Amino acid sequence: MKVAVIGTGITKFGELWDKSFYDLAEEAASHAILESKIEPGQIDAVFCANMLSGNLTGQNHLGAQVTSILKIHCPAYTIEAACASGGVATNLAYLSILSGKAKNVLVIGVEKMTDFTNAEVASGLMGAASEDERQAGLTFPGLYALMANAHMQKFKTTRRDLANVAVKNHYHGSLNENAQFQNRITIEKVLESPPVATPLTLFDCSPMSDGAAAIILSAVENTNNSPQITASAVATDTVGLAKRKSITEILATKIAAQNAYKQAGITPADINVAEVHDCFTIAEIIAMEDLGFCPKGRGGKYISNGSTKLGGSKPINTSGGLKACGHPVGATGIKQIIEITKQLKGEAEKRQVKSAKIGLAHNIGGSGATAAVHILQI
Amino acid sequence: MKVAVIGTGITKFGELWDKSFYDLAEEAASHAILESKIEPGQIDAVFCANMLSGNLTGQNHLGAQVTSILKIHCPAYTIEAACASGGVATNLAYLSILSGKAKNVLVIGVEKMTDFTNAEVASGLMGAASEDERQAGLTFPGLYALMANAHMQKFKTTRRDLANVAVKNHYHGSLNENAQFQNRITIEKVLESPPVATPLTLFDCSPMSDGAAAIILSAVENTNNSPQITASAVATDTVGLAKRKSITEILATKIAAQNAYKQAGITPADINVAEVHDCFTIAEIIAMEDLGFCPKGRGGKYISNGSTKLGGSKPINTSGGLKACGHPVGATGIKQIIEITKQLKGEAEKRQVKSAKIGLAHNIGGSGATAAVHILQI
Repeated sequence: MKVAVIGTGITKFGELWDKSFYDLAEEAASHAILESKIEPGQIDAVFCANMLSGNLTGQNHLGAQVTSILKIHCPAYTIEAACASGGVATNLAYLSILSGKAKNVLVIGVEKMTDFTNAEVASGLMGAASEDERQAGLTFPGLYALMANAHMQKFKTTRRDLANVAVKNHYHGSLNENAQFQNRITIEKVLESPPVATPLTLFDCSPMSDGAAAIILSAVENTNNSPQITASAVATDTVGLAKRKSITEILATKIAAQNAYKQAGITPADINVAEVHDCFTIAEIIAMEDLGFCPKGRGGKYISNGSTKLGGSKPINTSGGLKACGHPVGATGIKQIIEITKQLKGEAEKRQVKSAKIGLAHNIGGSGATAAVHILQI
Repeated sequence: MKVAVIGTGITKFGELWDKSFYDLAEEAASHAILESKIEPGQIDAVFCANMLSGNLTGQNHLGAQVTSILKIHCPAYTIEAACASGGVATNLAYLSILSGKAKNVLVIGVEKMTDFTNAEVASGLMGAASEDERQAGLTFPGLYALMANAHMQKFKTTRRDLANVAVKNHYHGSLNENAQFQNRITIEKVLESPPVATPLTLFDCSPMSDGAAAIILSAVENTNNSPQITASAVATDTVGLAKRKSITEILATKIAAQNAYKQAGITPADINVAEVHDCFTIAEIIAMEDLGFCPKGRGGKYISNGSTKLGGSKPINTSGGLKACGHPVGATGIKQIIEITKQLKGEAEKRQVKSAKIGLAHNIGGSGATAAVHILQI
């Protein structure tokens, strides 16, 4: 038995003020169901990933809201793991199929963020951090700025290395019609953008976004040109940065990645294409190292030398990443699986990676307290 | 391979103003781990059930908060399904063991409600309802009052039948030293208590509570006097009452129960003891019918005639139920599993049901959009 991605559905990511949570959920779910060629009644379980609905609108119980929309009565679960909600929900959906109790499951991530003020959303997002970080007045740009400064000091990573992540991901976003930002930018544009938390400036940061993404996972004997999930791993670390041995790595990513490579029986070198969690530019640099794509401390140079740009040896974040495609929190981890699915099926259009056979999706919650890593193969 | 409950831990339920979310989580988890005789490092996954932390305090990412406390790095999941969060988390934990990817899992439910005003918590709880119900200004007592009125009209259920549920559950609570309310009450006390949503008065309603409950589930060959989970089922229905065919039954309960009885290969008559979701007295009456313990429409009489009191043919809510033991939302479904575990192991002390071999736990989210049913056997 194999677990395959047999259907995908995604909305445009961006400021979608004319669409409700339910509109977005329905749009993504309907498309995934249609593409999978199953009927809603054949869905055995729904996993709904969301972080902020309770905090911002007071609406909970979202899993049942989705089964309500689809007029089905199967089990429904609402899964939250901060910005890793989508990846973690995918992991649980995968386990539910392995359990033998479900054949077809819908995994859907939805987030509505832009109906609220930046202050409201920024405060909501701090729900991913530790209580002492919240009480100290830290923000997520601040937390990642601490990591960036430490990385720059220890490994000679430069401000331009950080900026290059944003330039590359905006370039990829320009090739993705669902991306929130489809404009290319220059390194100067990043360097000259307003400071957010030094060294991070505006263009080092992923935006606030609305959007939904859905996949149908299915237990199959024959994958029929659908990518198979060959590894699904989640790991955790302390929620607060202060308690970690090192802040120039994300231990949860390293544990999840090692576990995932072992499950799939492959090495980092085998990965042809990956979506990684670039909530801030420094996060993508650290991810390159933690995922084993380059030696420790070399993430900045690895990206700056073009290896991870379309056409390079290991294209990263062809969707545009969180940075340019947008970051509707609960949807992000599922969007990553969809991008890898499209790449492996040769359906990534202008951003297609040639002969991609093995892809990886890497989703982070908070400043790295949760990491989810999936490997897909075709 | 069997899935057994090898450890349990529960805090007192009540107004615990001197204990934080983390204090409660640590207390329940530590006890469950100690009782299970495993080390924290042997835990393969953590499932954390909570509904209101994001809404009330802005704190999310609770699964990783728990692994942080325990200083472990395993996968951690935060599960929300309104008041069914605990039952639903138990279901997912069970599936994760069946998947073969986990041997020992910690399921923990925690809720802090009494640090907030009743208005804040009541508003938070409406996150379990549908958007139109929220906009119409309905409250949960109001929703269950609609069901109560319909049931009274259709089946001649009386105001005294409702009150008898509260009297019985307070009696059971008086035998449980962890219960929020350990005082016995009379039927007059219920009838004379202030109206909340007619016909429901104050003593028809479960309280707001703080508390935590934790269990360790484990894949075992030999259960060694630990109860085995022989069925775990979740079902859903429309979130809003208005869209249901009937409001004198909870369809999700019926579907989950039928599925559970089938999994365990038993009938309702085989159940010796059950914990059911009595958020309001009418809910326990409807549960008796939906779970097949008595014919449709006879739930009120079934309770009023003493069948479900300790010493009766099928004792229900020996813990005191949500009504008297308290209802710290995320913890409730797990407390139910703990009560059944204690009953089956013969460790329920003053409230022990003689020769209990098969028990059932029934947990509802919202006004019945989610239902989780577990069957345990020894």
